[in-house]
Parts: sequence; structure tokens; C-alpha cells
Amino acid sequence: MRIGVLSLVSLAVTISAAPASNGVRNVIMMVSDGFGPASETMARDYIQQLKQLPYNYTTILDSMLIGSSRTASTDSFVTDSAAGAVVFASGIKTYNGAIGVNNDIKPVGTNMEAAHRRGMKTGLVVKSFITDATPAAFASHAAHRDMQDLIADQLAGLVPEIGHNVDLMFGGGRCKFIGNSTKGSCRKDDRDTWGILKKNNWSLLETNDDFKKLSDSPTFPVLGLFDMDKIPYSMDYKTKDVPTLPQMAKKALDILTEATTNSEQGFYVMIEGSRIDHAGHDNDLGTHINEILEYWETIRLVSEYVDAHPDTIMISTSDHETGGLTIGRDNNYYAYPLLYYNQTMSFDVSCKGLLDLPLSKRGQYVTETVLPVHLGISNMTAVSAGNILSATTRQDCLIAMREVLAVKANIFWTTLGHSGVDVNLYAKGKHTEELAGNHENVDIGKFITRTLGLDVNSVTESIKDTNVFQYPYKKVDNTKVYNNFAEYLHR
Amino acid sequence: MRIGVLSLVSLAVTISAAPASNGVRNVIMMVSDGFGPASETMARDYIQQLKQLPYNYTTILDSMLIGSSRTASTDSFVTDSAAGAVVFASGIKTYNGAIGVNNDIKPVGTNMEAAHRRGMKTGLVVKSFITDATPAAFASHAAHRDMQDLIADQLAGLVPEIGHNVDLMFGGGRCKFIGNSTKGSCRKDDRDTWGILKKNNWSLLETNDDFKKLSDSPTFPVLGLFDMDKIPYSMDYKTKDVPTLPQMAKKALDILTEATTNSEQGFYVMIEGSRIDHAGHDNDLGTHINEILEYWETIRLVSEYVDAHPDTIMISTSDHETGGLTIGRDNNYYAYPLLYYNQTMSFDVSCKGLLDLPLSKRGQYVTETVLPVHLGISNMTAVSAGNILSATTRQDCLIAMREVLAVKANIFWTTLGHSGVDVNLYAKGKHTEELAGNHENVDIGKFITRTLGLDVNSVTESIKDTNVFQYPYKKVDNTKVYNNFAEYLHR
Repeated sequence: MRIGVLSLVSLAVTISAAPASNGVRNVIMMVSDGFGPASETMARDYIQQLKQLPYNYTTILDSMLIGSSRTASTDSFVTDSAAGAVVFASGIKTYNGAIGVNNDIKPVGTNMEAAHRRGMKTGLVVKSFITDATPAAFASHAAHRDMQDLIADQLAGLVPEIGHNVDLMFGGGRCKFIGNSTKGSCRKDDRDTWGILKKNNWSLLETNDDFKKLSDSPTFPVLGLFDMDKIPYSMDYKTKDVPTLPQMAKKALDILTEATTNSEQGFYVMIEGSRIDHAGHDNDLGTHINEILEYWETIRLVSEYVDAHPDTIMISTSDHETGGLTIGRDNNYYAYPLLYYNQTMSFDVSCKGLLDLPLSKRGQYVTETVLPVHLGISNMTAVSAGNILSATTRQDCLIAMREVLAVKANIFWTTLGHSGVDVNLYAKGKHTEELAGNHENVDIGKFITRTLGLDVNSVTESIKDTNVFQYPYKKVDNTKVYNNFAEYLHR
Repeated sequence: MRIGVLSLVSLAVTISAAPASNGVRNVIMMVSDGFGPASETMARDYIQQLKQLPYNYTTILDSMLIGSSRTASTDSFVTDSAAGAVVFASGIKTYNGAIGVNNDIKPVGTNMEAAHRRGMKTGLVVKSFITDATPAAFASHAAHRDMQDLIADQLAGLVPEIGHNVDLMFGGGRCKFIGNSTKGSCRKDDRDTWGILKKNNWSLLETNDDFKKLSDSPTFPVLGLFDMDKIPYSMDYKTKDVPTLPQMAKKALDILTEATTNSEQGFYVMIEGSRIDHAGHDNDLGTHINEILEYWETIRLVSEYVDAHPDTIMISTSDHETGGLTIGRDNNYYAYPLLYYNQTMSFDVSCKGLLDLPLSKRGQYVTETVLPVHLGISNMTAVSAGNILSATTRQDCLIAMREVLAVKANIFWTTLGHSGVDVNLYAKGKHTEELAGNHENVDIGKFITRTLGLDVNSVTESIKDTNVFQYPYKKVDNTKVYNNFAEYLHR
């Protein structure tokens, strides 16, 4: 209700810069994949114990908690990352595995596609392969997330009905963009997408050097895929020269800001802490915590961006919990997360190192490297060494490593998959109070669409004939009750 | 900013009734003991599946979620119900086991004691024994929660320094108030507290008939203990004639309202869904869900009370999570809580029935009663029957029953104790927005004290010489890391 020179000036700025009248020009959607309520508590416990912080120490996420998000998909109380991302991108519930399609396997438009069509700049920044379920759901359409070649072609703008919708992509998974006659490819066919995009004048980045040299005003579209597979866990950065998640996020914000400074339209970027989830699948708490710390660092710079740009809002939530993590086990009343401080290598890399060795060399590796160095165990026992040494599969190895540490730290993981608990919902910026309280995950996607004033329906209409099948696909019934795991596996 | 006849009338009522100027006269503190984030999701999943409710069905708690509460005690990231209740009653962190004492084992005043001294009416309504950790922490002071006789004497107003502070108590645990020469007593000494209170003119209630006959204007203090031990699980109400939690809560509100209608002072009552926690300790999901449904029913009537009385606020939270419940297990992507609909008896009562039988009778009991009737299993297997039959202890029996159901429902419990995850925080009423977001549990106790304008410090001063030791007590170091459970047990 204030009137005067100051508010007239503000009003003028708003009119010149924002297409919507609600003051929101940019949206930064942060996804902490597989990060449940216990993960936030656990990471806070860890950092409190490590740095001897006061009991009421508040993490950057704690300071912006506004509610919780409910994660069920149409076919299960336990969602996957595909159905769990469609809700943010398209604001609809769908089945586990679905990418940009509804429960009838029909393509639905996404708010990122609608944003791009309206002239906004768009971006996807992830640590997983760029065609993985979460980023895929924002700008591609496939009956199942496993249709990786189809998703890659769509993200590359090579499917005419869909066109090209993402101006900037940073992540891993270059193997999906290289024909299978080339070493390192993981495509089923020989399509050389990378070569096509080069001809199409895309800015293509492969190395950290490419990344460091990237201008804040590059030629769009920008596609930086810094690993054939996923970008390493932060705990394993020492093994490869790659940009980190906060570095990629910072660069993306710099570029998108620069590109929209003189435009009436803003930007919409999704930034994912993808590998919080992977460490949960591996039941690897040390790695899980380190991915969370890196996510916090990313959240901090995004939060500072929002402070400096009041026309920008951020939301941070998870698609689901992964691993069934609990702080406590076996009737004990203590937990000791700091035990994981001495871990120096992810279970993933350590297990690979072990299983790649001939059996004759593994004993020495376990007692001299895995236990004392990778897991940081100072008082290893014959039993823990024997359990790891006896692993013949990656899964055996993960579980053996998990137990060596988890029993001492007094934590538990109940699954190598996901669980159904509501996840925390964090937000900052104008109108985000509309998301306060307990919400269905679809409300988040609807909120983004509504707040940016996007027309998703017209996207849906224009892509309705897109082929979302790459190969025969059979939908799985996840509501059936199975008597045991074997029965489920052979359903 | 409205003015006119209507708002003048409202103003007049407010002035005549409220001692504080902030419009808050009554506080209803609801404690869902042992109820973690996964428990709310799971109970919602269950009721959605049972009643075929839409995916976005909202429970009464969902509709008032405002944030989360952090639960660590001074000696562990995993709290117990004693330290976890002192935070609400006294607004301070203390050690596991502490009742109304600080970390130096010195007595600290509670907001309920301060409320009573100022002339407010006070109440405790629980399903556990009234001397159990949660209610005890609001009006008694003991170095350890196991000092049950001392706590009973203090709640009965028989310790002069403390005096009598609770006007109305409903719950279980009459055995603590009867001398040990009388059958059914669980006291260490022969003090006949019940007889003393009768002479002191307390309104004493023992049966559901007593409860039903209780006037809304009884002689204070009122002490209704409807079971020698805990009040049964809602699933087992059929085994005993007792008032339910919603019935006790309703009656308490009626009485406290009546007693304060013509007073300048309001009331402060703590109502606990005590046995949500016990079912968690038993890893008994069917019973756990039923306790939650009963808690929701209680929350609903309290919420309606707040709607009708805008000078009343309610808060609902948990002291901690119990059981390490996860919705999902073993790499599966579905969960089937409705499986528990056919369960008709708590594991607690069923196991007692089993273990009370001579071994020769147990086989028939397991195959004819436990599996098909109590657990509601239609297709029992020889293995499940054998596992239950082979149980020789209560704990074996609980775990065997848990596994029969949990493997089919695809849920997991990781501990028979507590876990450290942040718990949900719900509230309704004036000023409760101050509790929005992520909070330390002590903030809740401080909020109650502040909002009611209570002087807890003067209570602390006046009780500083109270004896809080009943027998030699040794504080346990919960921060130590143990190599295994046996080492912990023998610490």
C-alpha cells in the first residue's frame, strides 16, 4: 500500500523485465534424488559431530523447510525417478518408468518445453547421465525410461514433433550420443548424435578444460557431457577431472542470467543432486553424506542467487527416498555417523577395484587397501575382511561393505531400491508460501506452471502423435502382492 | 480492522476471559509418541487403500503440517521419551532417561507447573501408565524415568517442595499407586497412595463405569487410572472395558472448559498417543496403524475444539521415531499396507497367549488361532508357522510375527528401539506460525512458555532442593561407539 517515488521505480523495473505480473521471472528447480527425511537429519548429525557445532546448528536446507511432498505413483506407493520427475515437469501422476507420458502412455507436454516455446531460456544440470529419468522427464517422452536412445535423440532436438527445448545441458552420459561402432558408445544403434550436433552448431563440451573455457555468452544450445557414464561421486572426484555439481550450477546460472538480461523472458533450470540417490541404492552412507554436502553447497549458491535476484524463486525437493535409511538399529540408542569420515572411496569404485582383480590378489587388496584405506577402518576384524573377500557380485560386495560400517555406526539400510516416505519440501522466493504444508508432488509441477504462467496444454496438443515407443514394452503391475522376492523377480 | 457491534462484542469476551494479551488462553499439547514421518505416510497409504480414497486424500494431520522437530538429546542423536518430553515441558535439552531435570541432574521447573501456580487448570491424558516418561516429564522430577515410585508420589502431590500441579490425569498404571502388600501392585514399597488420595478428597476413577459417570464439574484433582498397567492397544479394546483415547480427551476438554469458563485463567493439557510408540517397539505395524488412526480421531476432535475456541491453540508432534519403519524393502518397488487389515490382535497379546501355553498346546494355537485369526493370514506356510512356534521369548515371537507379515507387505523395521530422524510438526491456532519450518524440539517447549506468558524460572528456584534420586543411579555414556550389540549391552 506504499506509494511514492520508490515504489513507482520498482514497478517500472518489473514491467520492463518480467512477462508475468506476479514478479517471478526465473525458476530454479532443485531435485535431491533419493534424499529422504532421515538423510537430512543424518547429514546434519554428521557435520555437527565433525565440526563440533552447537545442537541447534541449522543447515541451508533446514532454514528453508516449508513442508513435505507425497511421492506415490499411479501404480505403487513406492515411486521411481521417472514417475517422480513427471510430476514436477508435467504436474500429473503417472506410472513408474514413464517419461513425459501419462498413465495411458500418451505424451504430455512439460513446463520446460512450454517455457522454451515462450522464449524463456531453459537448462538441465545433473550428475547422472543427461538421459536419466529425472532430466529426461523435463524434455522428452518415452513409454519407459530404459528407452535411452530415443530419449537422447529427443534431448538432442532430433525428433521433429518435439523439437529442441533445452538450451543448456550439463551432466554425464556422453556414451548415449555416440554410435555403437565407436568405442565407449552405449547406444543400440550407430547414430552419431554428437557429430550431428556439431554440424548443427551446438556448443559441445567433453572435458573439464572445455568447461573452464566456456564463455558466459556461448552459442546455444550448449551440451556439456563430462563423462561417458555418470559424473563421479564427489568422494571419487580425485579419480577423474570433471566439473563438480556446484561448479556446473554456478556456470549454468551465469550463462542463463547473461542470456536473459536484456530479454523480456527469464530462465527455468532444473539442477539435480542425482547421485545422492545412487549412493542410497549402494547403501553407501559415507558417499551418500558427501553427495548431500555437495548438494547443500549447490543450494547455498542458488539461495544466494535468489537473494540477489528477487525475481527468481527456488524449490528443492526429492522425487522419493532411496535405501530405507534409519538412524539407529538393533534396539540401540546411539548413532555415530562420524565413523564415515575416514571413508575415502565410494563402495562403487572400491568394489569394482576388488572384483576386477584375480581372486589370488583380492585378499591382500581387502586387508591392505579396502578396509584400512577405502573404508577407513582402524580395527578391522577377520570376519569383516572375510565377508568382503567372499563377495562374488557387486551386490554382495556393497552389502558386505555396508555392514562393516553400519553395525559400528548403528545405522541401517532396508532396501537397495526406494521407499515410500513423504520427502521434505524446501523453497524460497515469491509465492512459494503456496507450497507450505503437506503436498502431493504434482502440486509442485502445477505451481511452476502456474507461477510462470505457462501453457503446457498447447505443448501436449502439438506433440500428441509423437512416437514414445522404441521397442515392445509391457507395463508391470506393481500393485500385486508377492510372497517373496523371487516371485516378484519372476513376475 | 473491522469495527462495529460484532467486533466490540468479541473484544469484550476476550478481555473478560484471557490473562495474556496475545489472545491465547488454552494450550493443547498433543504428543504422538514414537511416530515418525514414515508412520504418517504408511497410515495414510493404508486408509487410502482400504477406503479407495483419491491419491490426494489429506489426513487431519496432513492438513496442519507446519514443519519438523529435531530430536537429539544431550547424550545421543537417538533420544528417549524422557529427554524427548523434557524439551516440551521445560524447554531444555537433557540426557536420555531424565525426568524434569537438566543435564547436571538438577530439577527444572515445567511450564505445566508454572501454569498451575498461576491458576490455570492442568491435565495429562495418556494411554500408557501415568508415571511413564512423557507425562512424568510435565510434572515430576527424577534422575531417571525408572524411578517410578518417586514419580508416582510427585504426581500425587505427596512431595511437599513440588506440591500438586496436575488437576486432571487420565491414563493407566494404577499399580504404581498401590502398596506392594496388595495384589496387583508394582511398587517397591507398601505406600498406599490411592488410599491417601481418597482421604485427601481426590476424585478417583478405576473403571469405565466410573469414567462414564464422571461429571463435567468434578471435585479436583481428578485421577482416573483405568488399568493396572497400560491401557490396551485400540486393537485389543475388546479384551478390556476401558475408555478410549478420544473419549478421555473429549472428557478432559469438557471438564477443563467447564472449570475455566468463569475464570480469568485457561487450561493447559497434554494428550499423548502413547502406544503408537509401543507398537513401534513391538514392530507390530497393524497395531501401530490402528493407534495412529485413533490418534487422528483424537486430533480431529481437538482440532474442532480449536475451531470453536479461537483462544485455544494445539500443537502435535512426536518425541522421536520408533522402530525404524520403512515403506519398502529388499529392492522391491511396491508396498501393501492393507495386508494388515486382517490382523485382529496385537502381537503383544497374541505372543503372551502363545507363551503362556504349555509347549504341547502351542502348535495348534499357532495354526488355528495365531496365523489365521490374529494375523489374518489366509495362506500360511509351514515356515511361518514353524518360526512363530519356535519362539521361546517375547522378542523372538514379535520378530517372527513381524516377518510373516512384513515380507508380504514389503515393509521393514530396523530396530526394537528408537531412531533419530526429524519428526513432523503440526499446529493450529494463534501464533503457531512461529513454529513453522525446521525446529529444535526445545523451541516447542519455549513457545508454550512464551505464548502462555509463564514464569518457569521461579518454579525451578522453588524446587531446587527436591530429591530427584530414589536409588543409586549411574549415567550411561551413549556417545561411545561400540563394536557390536553385545559390547553395548555389557557397557
